Amino acid sequence: MAYQAFQPPIRTLMGPGPSDVHPRVLAAMSKPTVGHLDPSFVTLMDDIKSLLQAIFQTRNGLTIAVSAPGSAGMEMCFVNLVQPGDTVVVCRNGVFGGRMAENVTRIGAKAVVVDDAWGSAVDIDKLGQTLKNHPETTTVAFVHAETSTGVRSDAEAITAVAHKYGCLVIMDAVTSLAGIPLMVDQWEVDAVYSGSQKCLSCAPGLSPVTLNENAVRRIQERKHPVQSWFLDLNLVMGYWGGEQKRSYHHTAPVNALYGLHEALLMVVQEGLENAWLRHQRMHAALREGLAAMNIEFVVDPDHRLPQLNAVRIPEGVDDAQVRSRLLQDYQLEIGAGLGGFAGKVWRIGLMGQSACTRNVVYCLSTLEKVLTDLKAPISQGVAVPAALSVLP
Amino acid sequence: MAYQAFQPPIRTLMGPGPSDVHPRVLAAMSKPTVGHLDPSFVTLMDDIKSLLQAIFQTRNGLTIAVSAPGSAGMEMCFVNLVQPGDTVVVCRNGVFGGRMAENVTRIGAKAVVVDDAWGSAVDIDKLGQTLKNHPETTTVAFVHAETSTGVRSDAEAITAVAHKYGCLVIMDAVTSLAGIPLMVDQWEVDAVYSGSQKCLSCAPGLSPVTLNENAVRRIQERKHPVQSWFLDLNLVMGYWGGEQKRSYHHTAPVNALYGLHEALLMVVQEGLENAWLRHQRMHAALREGLAAMNIEFVVDPDHRLPQLNAVRIPEGVDDAQVRSRLLQDYQLEIGAGLGGFAGKVWRIGLMGQSACTRNVVYCLSTLEKVLTDLKAPISQGVAVPAALSVLP
Repeated sequence: MAYQAFQPPIRTLMGPGPSDVHPRVLAAMSKPTVGHLDPSFVTLMDDIKSLLQAIFQTRNGLTIAVSAPGSAGMEMCFVNLVQPGDTVVVCRNGVFGGRMAENVTRIGAKAVVVDDAWGSAVDIDKLGQTLKNHPETTTVAFVHAETSTGVRSDAEAITAVAHKYGCLVIMDAVTSLAGIPLMVDQWEVDAVYSGSQKCLSCAPGLSPVTLNENAVRRIQERKHPVQSWFLDLNLVMGYWGGEQKRSYHHTAPVNALYGLHEALLMVVQEGLENAWLRHQRMHAALREGLAAMNIEFVVDPDHRLPQLNAVRIPEGVDDAQVRSRLLQDYQLEIGAGLGGFAGKVWRIGLMGQSACTRNVVYCLSTLEKVLTDLKAPISQGVAVPAALSVLP
Repeated sequence: MAYQAFQPPIRTLMGPGPSDVHPRVLAAMSKPTVGHLDPSFVTLMDDIKSLLQAIFQTRNGLTIAVSAPGSAGMEMCFVNLVQPGDTVVVCRNGVFGGRMAENVTRIGAKAVVVDDAWGSAVDIDKLGQTLKNHPETTTVAFVHAETSTGVRSDAEAITAVAHKYGCLVIMDAVTSLAGIPLMVDQWEVDAVYSGSQKCLSCAPGLSPVTLNENAVRRIQERKHPVQSWFLDLNLVMGYWGGEQKRSYHHTAPVNALYGLHEALLMVVQEGLENAWLRHQRMHAALREGLAAMNIEFVVDPDHRLPQLNAVRIPEGVDDAQVRSRLLQDYQLEIGAGLGGFAGKVWRIGLMGQSACTRNVVYCLSTLEKVLTDLKAPISQGVAVPAALSVLP
């Protein structure tokens, strides 16, 4: 066999995640490994917990990083909070709502799906009506920021209507955390999961999760054991500490957690509100540049995510050709459309470290060049000036 | 908040894992992140698969690295191969056999446990008798190398008796892979999971898994959907490729996989048989040194793991005091005993990069010093010469 050390190309990551990882975070992951029960590592875990609490805007004691990607964080919330026979109302307005419903049925619970069109936000009235029709519902699940469509739903309003009907709320914040305002305590969201590789700009592989006291109580009062041993919060809580002595559950991904710590530190050092503002400003610049090229957004302005820009591929332009030229000629990754959006929509990410002027300028310049080469009817030389005109 | 960048202490890792991670592997993890669907990353995943096949000694097409620690690899094997109502015979001779039984019952299947004393290998005759008494059994599960006790069981013989009774076999190879001979195809083991942080000397967080055609067929013929979405091999197989086009399942832990690739490459470059031999030689040296200090092994010589040395704590010596002095004064981590072995046994790991003369000498020297300081009745200055005398 003739294997060689892997030398990754240096990409600019403007897809739906992972986002660009800062050299500080890359360097942190390469520090020497210590044992997962080492006193220094226990301190690191405590710091990660405090940093996550600051970024989730919560005092929840049960705030941890699951040792696996966001999909596992999702599954952790569902298998701990839902029991066989329960009814869960799932709001679905994109791919990830559908995945939530899959989680529910695999538990042996019933998923009542409230569908909204791809590109639209969750309809609060329709949710309320559904909960009225299904008084047996124990849980409402929704996606704060739909990565497949670029839509922001009103997390506070959804949570309020769910609580009105006596339900706990599970929220997907994979793409929203650190990119747009997310106030776990103020909005009273019961269980939230996220991912490390979006607006936190850490490498993929970890899933920050936070649960409030109502969620913890439900876990403690379960009649059925949690179906997953790896994701059983009764056991994981023992490892992440709290009142009890820290006990061995699984071997934590030590170096990945070094990276997460550094990424969280960078968010807190910048200031969470400054990070939100930066995402908003870079989105405004990108939007102006795209408008100058007559490229339209899928989502109406009120529900648009600054960090995930879903835009319509201009008429007659070949999706795959553009993306592969951007990747091959310019080392720039933008995202394809998923499901019904495949071939029709691009997803341009401005997440975490990728939300910077350099990336906005580079994306607009190269996209303009590739579209011009393919004879798309756009004006040349206007996108970047338009973008820069709205930046301070 | 006054957080600082994390600066881990430089430990020598001679516990039950993680083991010392080579600078090449640490450096690999800090290379720039690419997207998880990037063509370069797809090639990396193909290379990881081939390297894992070489180290597992298998041609199994379904050979992957699960995006989570060994506990998740264990759960993946069980939730895919076992259905509610099945009977699974679990061989238990330490902590990890007990964890397997937990996995079985959480699926709604019946675990028939065959117990052997901690420190003993799995008794093949007792297993055969149990299978005879439980003809409804579909699966036999056992631990090749019990990390809690330092025992090697006869994987080939266990698999043969399981097959005689028409059962598939799930084997825990977390501590054995790359440390002692393990021939998946030759022994016809149906499903095997391991961990990245033991004899592969990668950072913790990934779980190599391999399944043969009989195991895949059972998954394809399941009547109940797999209870875990994250661990459903029908979906994960699509992501790791094969006949089909690679499809998005979850976001792979990109940088962790860079590290695994480099660690696997190092094993293959050394040569798998050379790696086994190195573990055996270092074990022999450590054993001679410990014998010179009158420290006894828990396990009889025929079933001893070279990479996990379970030894009796000398009479009157305080376990925690010794381990904390080794850690604080010498930055050396050795492992405590688990369960019934707590306070009575140390577990000295010689795994992967930690299986080297430098570590053997350092461990014997510092342990001798600490024990002498605590007035344990040992001769001074004999351990290291004894160890070095058996090395070439």
